[in-house]
Amino acid sequence: MTYCVGMRLDKGLVFMSDTRTNAGVDDIASVKKMYSWEVPGERLITLLSAGNLGTTQAVVGMLEEQHKRREDRQSDLHETNTLFQTARLIGDTVKATIRDAHDGGPMQGSTFHATFIMGGQIKGEEPRLFFIYPEGNFVEATNENPFFQIGENKYGKPILVRAYEPGLSFEAAAKLLLISFDSTLKSNLSVGMPLDFQVYETDALCKGPEKRFEVDDIYYQEVSGGWSHAIKSAFNSLRDYSFEAQPQRV
Amino acid sequence: MTYCVGMRLDKGLVFMSDTRTNAGVDDIASVKKMYSWEVPGERLITLLSAGNLGTTQAVVGMLEEQHKRREDRQSDLHETNTLFQTARLIGDTVKATIRDAHDGGPMQGSTFHATFIMGGQIKGEEPRLFFIYPEGNFVEATNENPFFQIGENKYGKPILVRAYEPGLSFEAAAKLLLISFDSTLKSNLSVGMPLDFQVYETDALCKGPEKRFEVDDIYYQEVSGGWSHAIKSAFNSLRDYSFEAQPQRV
Repeated sequence: MTYCVGMRLDKGLVFMSDTRTNAGVDDIASVKKMYSWEVPGERLITLLSAGNLGTTQAVVGMLEEQHKRREDRQSDLHETNTLFQTARLIGDTVKATIRDAHDGGPMQGSTFHATFIMGGQIKGEEPRLFFIYPEGNFVEATNENPFFQIGENKYGKPILVRAYEPGLSFEAAAKLLLISFDSTLKSNLSVGMPLDFQVYETDALCKGPEKRFEVDDIYYQEVSGGWSHAIKSAFNSLRDYSFEAQPQRV
Repeated sequence: MTYCVGMRLDKGLVFMSDTRTNAGVDDIASVKKMYSWEVPGERLITLLSAGNLGTTQAVVGMLEEQHKRREDRQSDLHETNTLFQTARLIGDTVKATIRDAHDGGPMQGSTFHATFIMGGQIKGEEPRLFFIYPEGNFVEATNENPFFQIGENKYGKPILVRAYEPGLSFEAAAKLLLISFDSTLKSNLSVGMPLDFQVYETDALCKGPEKRFEVDDIYYQEVSGGWSHAIKSAFNSLRDYSFEAQPQRV
């Protein structure tokens, strides 16, 4: 499995992805699931991937190759005019990759499925964020729906729902994402350290600060340990239930 | 879907279940998923169910009918000598129910699957807690693995992992379960209020206090609102990430 989050803030976009990949529990490896393409001053596109590693790597490989072959420039990540077109290009690539993998092979069903989060900015547009399905279609983040999760998304959702605010600073968003990832890491072996983090600041039109949080990173350790402590304090701060009577506010 | 938790404490057992049942999003109803059988002074058995409602109601119906027919007394929930035997009886009933549902019918696959949590005490034994699979086999809670969740279990797991302690009072356990359920309710429409809560106190050998938390219950509202506030305070209590330098402990 995998866990990735892309989040829209007033100040821009933030992305985080884990690096665990596994085929069963006895075949575990570490792989980067965050890819970026940039033309400084013109565009920045970041892609997060979850699902079958063969599919996600093929999709990224095809996107890279399209860029290298001149005759395909009309369908190149560096040439799309809007992020909507970019999402459609990636969606078509995903759909074609999954269709090819199924074609004539022995496997059926959803074995080759993969989902993607894509975000960034092309000059002349606002920053945008998309969720791309294995079927190749996609949805865009809105004010009501300002973040996307792919992969093992459930453990880390409650804290995002409770603590997300569009006005968060990038520094506070890093903290929020680390807590969400740490809750997932503590509950599910298929999500693993290190974690890749990237910031995109509105109108920068180039890659923002990046950071790989290793398991022994001081700030990650501080958040993980501090959150356990803070959660227990939060738990203790609420009044226990009383069986005696219909409880009254105190 | 469904969300149910059974938890072993030093003082006994606690159970909580939601009441939402749905066939698609436009066919929603409320149903109790917590069943108890007791022989005061001799045994108390509580069962929580998740999965296909036809299966779970058939299992409970068969267990009830076995009790009423005298010739089946040897396979009666009220006659088993240990909770291990009880788990086996329920497991066999689950397996037979699912097998019968598949037999000759048009449906295939896991449509009829259901999982159960069963706990309680029979005189002469300690309180015990079991997780029963659709295949009819089961596992028992241990000190290392002191609670079971069935149904939509992922959203509510992180708080259980962080705040569970075997020494919790029943009153604090009620609070913990309400927080875990509230995190799930806030993230997933297939889990719904009201919530059923039951306590079993070690060696009581009869049903302990029960409570149905309706959505307008004062204590539930207090926990739900208070937890949102406490989580935000906990979040704010941790230092934000700094991009400037490798962070130092402050």
